Amino acid sequence: MPRGKRGNAPSIRDVAAVAGVSVPTMSRYLKDPDRVSEKKRTAIAAAIEKLNYRPNPIARALALDMSESIAVMTADTTLYGRTQTIAGVERMAQEIGYSISICVLDARGGEKLLSSVRDCLDRSPAGVVLIDYDRLTDSVVSHIPASTPMTIVGGPRHEDRAQIHLCEYDSAYAMTQRLLELGHKTVHYVSVPADVDARADGWRMALSDAQVPAPAPVATTWNPEDAIAIGRELGDDDDVTAIFAGNDEVAMGLMRGLALAGRRVPDDVSVAGFDDHTLAKVWNPPLTTVRQRFGDAGARAVELLKQQIDDVVNERPRGEAWTTFDELAGELVERESTGPARR
Amino acid sequence: MPRGKRGNAPSIRDVAAVAGVSVPTMSRYLKDPDRVSEKKRTAIAAAIEKLNYRPNPIARALALDMSESIAVMTADTTLYGRTQTIAGVERMAQEIGYSISICVLDARGGEKLLSSVRDCLDRSPAGVVLIDYDRLTDSVVSHIPASTPMTIVGGPRHEDRAQIHLCEYDSAYAMTQRLLELGHKTVHYVSVPADVDARADGWRMALSDAQVPAPAPVATTWNPEDAIAIGRELGDDDDVTAIFAGNDEVAMGLMRGLALAGRRVPDDVSVAGFDDHTLAKVWNPPLTTVRQRFGDAGARAVELLKQQIDDVVNERPRGEAWTTFDELAGELVERESTGPARR
Repeated sequence: MPRGKRGNAPSIRDVAAVAGVSVPTMSRYLKDPDRVSEKKRTAIAAAIEKLNYRPNPIARALALDMSESIAVMTADTTLYGRTQTIAGVERMAQEIGYSISICVLDARGGEKLLSSVRDCLDRSPAGVVLIDYDRLTDSVVSHIPASTPMTIVGGPRHEDRAQIHLCEYDSAYAMTQRLLELGHKTVHYVSVPADVDARADGWRMALSDAQVPAPAPVATTWNPEDAIAIGRELGDDDDVTAIFAGNDEVAMGLMRGLALAGRRVPDDVSVAGFDDHTLAKVWNPPLTTVRQRFGDAGARAVELLKQQIDDVVNERPRGEAWTTFDELAGELVERESTGPARR
Repeated sequence: MPRGKRGNAPSIRDVAAVAGVSVPTMSRYLKDPDRVSEKKRTAIAAAIEKLNYRPNPIARALALDMSESIAVMTADTTLYGRTQTIAGVERMAQEIGYSISICVLDARGGEKLLSSVRDCLDRSPAGVVLIDYDRLTDSVVSHIPASTPMTIVGGPRHEDRAQIHLCEYDSAYAMTQRLLELGHKTVHYVSVPADVDARADGWRMALSDAQVPAPAPVATTWNPEDAIAIGRELGDDDDVTAIFAGNDEVAMGLMRGLALAGRRVPDDVSVAGFDDHTLAKVWNPPLTTVRQRFGDAGARAVELLKQQIDDVVNERPRGEAWTTFDELAGELVERESTGPARR
């Protein structure tokens, strides 16, 4: 679609700014004024008159065509990190006047996955937040048209897209290092079924840098109940004094297993988790963990998306927001489930 | 829209059945055959020939207009009951070949709420599952056109709609009764911020029927951390021997507070929750609770929705599925956090 230079003619965005309304509200006004409150209608009409605004047909078409909804694409809506990221998206989207639609990607992959992506794009969202916490979701990136505003949260770097990075490798490295500092001879790792496990990589590298042999990681499921048996088994091994779990829910299951094996936390065994789950602080004893900034990541993703959408609405060339790479580092939170290695 | 009688002419649904594909796939085929796999295209073409199918213009228009997506309307995507219900919807929708879009209703209410409902309906979903766990979502029911297939999960009865009922009143009654049977003189209740609290009502009625005075319920937030202080305070009161919490996460916070007050669970104080949260079994000690059938409710909602959608696609009069009322009773799960009252 050709886009002419517009000189100093006011844009939809200018009118919105003068009227004190959001661009989506302006868009709604142009489509169907009755869907805007009377107060806003009056303000917009005054702004149109003041700026002598004459809708540019192309901008108007864009505004008309542009949904007021942001699509969140995610493969799962129950796992902690994803729900918290979505909550951050919701918060910021409400703040800037967009509605939210969550498209659940078909985890069976292949044609079914692509079909769920198409169904989502068919609804012409103003932009997409892709929660890229596994290989399946990452495979979706190449199927989103380059012209569609998008922010990716997590995943390997895609240079031509906006992306938020959660620095899990660094946090896992730091947690492992901290446990070694506390005098533990090594740190055992229990992994969740993530197919790209930066947490495991950070743990392994910290041990390697400290020239400590890495015990074989123990794999578990997303179901914390399955970690009970693992905790029991590790509890029977006198050499195990520190365990790092791939997430907090698994850490909780491990602690239950350790209790059943007659081990005290942290006196006999230190246990650390990952995420800072809502229940981590409530656990008995409260859980040492990495506080992940999931909510901030979701909110920041929407901010970047809004800048991209504004570029489209204002027929501007693409700004930095299309390729921004933001790092949101996690934070070590030491509570009562970790302590010095027993003598 | 007038709908003529079609006699024995085959419908889209008949063709789909013979071809062994879903109605949404048929619909996709009619819109854009390239979006259907070659294998299915061949099967559909053969079925069309076999049945001598000639698309009825009205049925075709309906099929073309009909999205292959089910919209889930919900006010929150982080609370346990909602995520589990949504997971049930996802499971069944995938099974029958529909994609899922979750519309997050604007919890600020009023015009913003209605605007988020309109944005969702503008995308012409094939049907709506409304997760009606509070007054805000319940107020949405009257804004969904009667012609739109819909199943409501939870909420007060709407006679003219399909609805799934979770029987929380009955379960809370039974749990309270069970705690009294264990010899507790009364049961204290700690409530979550639900504005329609069938759980509290069931607790109150069970006490009343047993002619036991009801202690004032203690209100807390959705954040389990806030329950710690309440647990501590209740733990300081020697008369408190049994506590029933509005959900499991609150029960976990209470147990942490009781531990800080030096009380043993269940020896000194019994604690029961509600929901059967993924972590209830993992807690130390494992939590007595009510197993809610959230996932089943979501799946059943989609089954009823599918029957309604089929009525529309096949131009049939409305069947029972439009007004079915299904009850999915919870189940008492006694674990180790409750026991006989201490002497």
